Amino acid sequence: MAMQAQVIYDFSAEPGNNELTVREGETVTVLNQNVGGGWIEAQNARGESGLVPEDYLQVSVCLCSLRITHHNNVCDGAAVTHLFCCNSLRICKVKSNPMLFVTCMGDVGPVWLYPQSPLDCVVADPKKGSKMYGLKSYIEYQVTPNTTNRPVNHRYKHFDWLYERLLEKFGSAIPIPSLPDKQVTGRFEEEFIKMRMERLQGWLCRMCRHPVVSNSDVFQLFLTYRDEKEWKTGKRRAEKDECVGPMVFSTIDPEAPELDIIEVEQKCELFSRFTKEMDDGVKDLLNVGNIHWKRCTGPLRKEYQKIGKAFQNLSSVFNTSGYTGEATLTDALTAAGKTYEEISQIVAEQPRKDLHFLMETNNEYKGLLGCFPDTIGVHKVHNRYYSTTMNHFHSNRIYDYNRVMQLYLEEQIRFYETIAEKLKQTLGQFTTL
Amino acid sequence: MAMQAQVIYDFSAEPGNNELTVREGETVTVLNQNVGGGWIEAQNARGESGLVPEDYLQVSVCLCSLRITHHNNVCDGAAVTHLFCCNSLRICKVKSNPMLFVTCMGDVGPVWLYPQSPLDCVVADPKKGSKMYGLKSYIEYQVTPNTTNRPVNHRYKHFDWLYERLLEKFGSAIPIPSLPDKQVTGRFEEEFIKMRMERLQGWLCRMCRHPVVSNSDVFQLFLTYRDEKEWKTGKRRAEKDECVGPMVFSTIDPEAPELDIIEVEQKCELFSRFTKEMDDGVKDLLNVGNIHWKRCTGPLRKEYQKIGKAFQNLSSVFNTSGYTGEATLTDALTAAGKTYEEISQIVAEQPRKDLHFLMETNNEYKGLLGCFPDTIGVHKVHNRYYSTTMNHFHSNRIYDYNRVMQLYLEEQIRFYETIAEKLKQTLGQFTTL
Repeated sequence: MAMQAQVIYDFSAEPGNNELTVREGETVTVLNQNVGGGWIEAQNARGESGLVPEDYLQVSVCLCSLRITHHNNVCDGAAVTHLFCCNSLRICKVKSNPMLFVTCMGDVGPVWLYPQSPLDCVVADPKKGSKMYGLKSYIEYQVTPNTTNRPVNHRYKHFDWLYERLLEKFGSAIPIPSLPDKQVTGRFEEEFIKMRMERLQGWLCRMCRHPVVSNSDVFQLFLTYRDEKEWKTGKRRAEKDECVGPMVFSTIDPEAPELDIIEVEQKCELFSRFTKEMDDGVKDLLNVGNIHWKRCTGPLRKEYQKIGKAFQNLSSVFNTSGYTGEATLTDALTAAGKTYEEISQIVAEQPRKDLHFLMETNNEYKGLLGCFPDTIGVHKVHNRYYSTTMNHFHSNRIYDYNRVMQLYLEEQIRFYETIAEKLKQTLGQFTTL
Repeated sequence: MAMQAQVIYDFSAEPGNNELTVREGETVTVLNQNVGGGWIEAQNARGESGLVPEDYLQVSVCLCSLRITHHNNVCDGAAVTHLFCCNSLRICKVKSNPMLFVTCMGDVGPVWLYPQSPLDCVVADPKKGSKMYGLKSYIEYQVTPNTTNRPVNHRYKHFDWLYERLLEKFGSAIPIPSLPDKQVTGRFEEEFIKMRMERLQGWLCRMCRHPVVSNSDVFQLFLTYRDEKEWKTGKRRAEKDECVGPMVFSTIDPEAPELDIIEVEQKCELFSRFTKEMDDGVKDLLNVGNIHWKRCTGPLRKEYQKIGKAFQNLSSVFNTSGYTGEATLTDALTAAGKTYEEISQIVAEQPRKDLHFLMETNNEYKGLLGCFPDTIGVHKVHNRYYSTTMNHFHSNRIYDYNRVMQLYLEEQIRFYETIAEKLKQTLGQFTTL
């Protein structure tokens, strides 16, 4: 399963150190992410391989982009369409008016008509920009949609502008999750930029997956504008758009019949309870995840370090005995001590490798679930779209949780196996007397 | 590596429950100690196998007895002699007087003359006894030496009597570690009895390994008395023994020459520093071991349980969605939740399986190191025995730590592998969409 990474800064290899020279913008294949010490083993397009500092690479981490990079940058459209439509579409009305969003009947009831090749995009390559002769500086991200493969640049405030437009236009009909938090302190720190980029990527991916949102003019403008002029004109037009709020329902052509009022009330009640309970469940998981994360990077890390130190101390004392034949024990005991120090590092770094994605997905859902009460209210009136919204949510949820749980378990297995392997090597150093 | 266990209480199998009926005193082979829930899978002499409650079995846990049981109850004398004598004896004087303890020159300098077949014994089968028409009750242990293979019964107070005799007689020349703590509360609780028995076994094993102690009349009396009369007569004789304290040096026939006073001072100084530093190292390890133990059985156990519960809760919520095709995710998510609950149990039970032996050995050494300051003082005078004592200590120490570290690492590897295996099975339940 080859993983791609984009080089975000130039790096010149130190000769004889098994390092690899890379240039900004270059794409490399990740050979080993677990070499440790802040290094990644990578291979360039010419087949040369070596170590590159991990901070110099942007490994695709978003769940969506993972899917893309795993398929050699060819978006696995068929699989996704298959998933979202739940097996097959039964009856579909397709109209040519681009403003008309279509629903149709799938196996699970009314669903959106999903495109054959779903839209997706990669947010990468954060760069510091400045204006007003350097008085104001900001971070600009490169956003590349899979339709044009042409990158456009956007700052956080552009994402924020897009969010406001989508909320205004679709917020009554479709849950639009909030952007990752605005934050001023530390916003130029690498760690923070990386995290924000990942979350913007996650947010944008989710928007891409919604056929109504992703087909809208304002969203397409954001992804595909060709120059400053087109962007500014498009912005003005979007801000003047009058087809917003409940009016957006008039642009949707429903396949589903009008429902009985009591039935709608019941369904809304059920879904409302579902989102409330899922919200509790998600918060519960986030809560224990946070505690576990802190334990791994804090007390547990220190504890394994102390165990390692205790073995090494004992070994040092034993070394002073002056007794013949001491070395077989002390060497092995020192090795055991070092192994537990390594385990301490592995334990501390593990949450970033597995818990991180689980937490990110649940954080996203926490935000998404927060949008539902409003939307449910509106759907009681425009009840024909109710099932479409629910089905979109459920199919995405099943896909997301399936994927993130697999990722989590895969990394957990690797974690336990890595430690077992290290301990085996250490055990081999002890002599059977 | 078959492990034997002695049945300490009768147990009748529940039909159809895969249990095994066993009778007190029977010896069974342990097939699987890790079935969990307080059960052990065992096989009897007739080849029948099944589950037996672990509290009904006395699995040989002492490091010494492990060595014995691993070799089908034939004590691996050659290996041990080889170890203690460090390769080969160079020159040995052997005299026929049984009261005369002999030292000789080994590769490492003067060592005790170790017997070809070292003495060892098993402490097992604790039974509640009573006297004064049931007014007073006590626990009696069965002690079986490998020389006679005939069990004798002893209460804790008999061990204490033996300790006092050994201390009085040999305490000036040989470090005699204290007995496991006297304790009144909870002394009839199974857990406590098991722990005390294990520690008495450890103490007795260590005494057996010392050729001077193990050959002494009082020690032999303790292990081999044939009836109450012989025990009482022997006790009286031992209590009247006048060859005690520094006088015991007159019964040792040294091979080593008298040393230069300054050299002795230096060696004593060195060893004194060694024992002090080892004492610090041992306490350090015990300290972090205790903290780690508590974390595993306390917060970590609870945390994995909470993670498990959080997955299962989410799965329950998902189950109420009413969405078609929900089951593939919810079943797998429930399985993941249960796996983390199992991991919680495994984590909590792990310290008993590995840390326990590491802690016991270090506790023993803490006691042993506490005896040294006195002994070192005496050795400054009777300096010819100095090296013999040190060499005995060092060879035992290397053997003990080598063994206990291997045991610890083996169990740790099994721990990490077990969890990885469980997670793999769980991962297999998720669908690749």
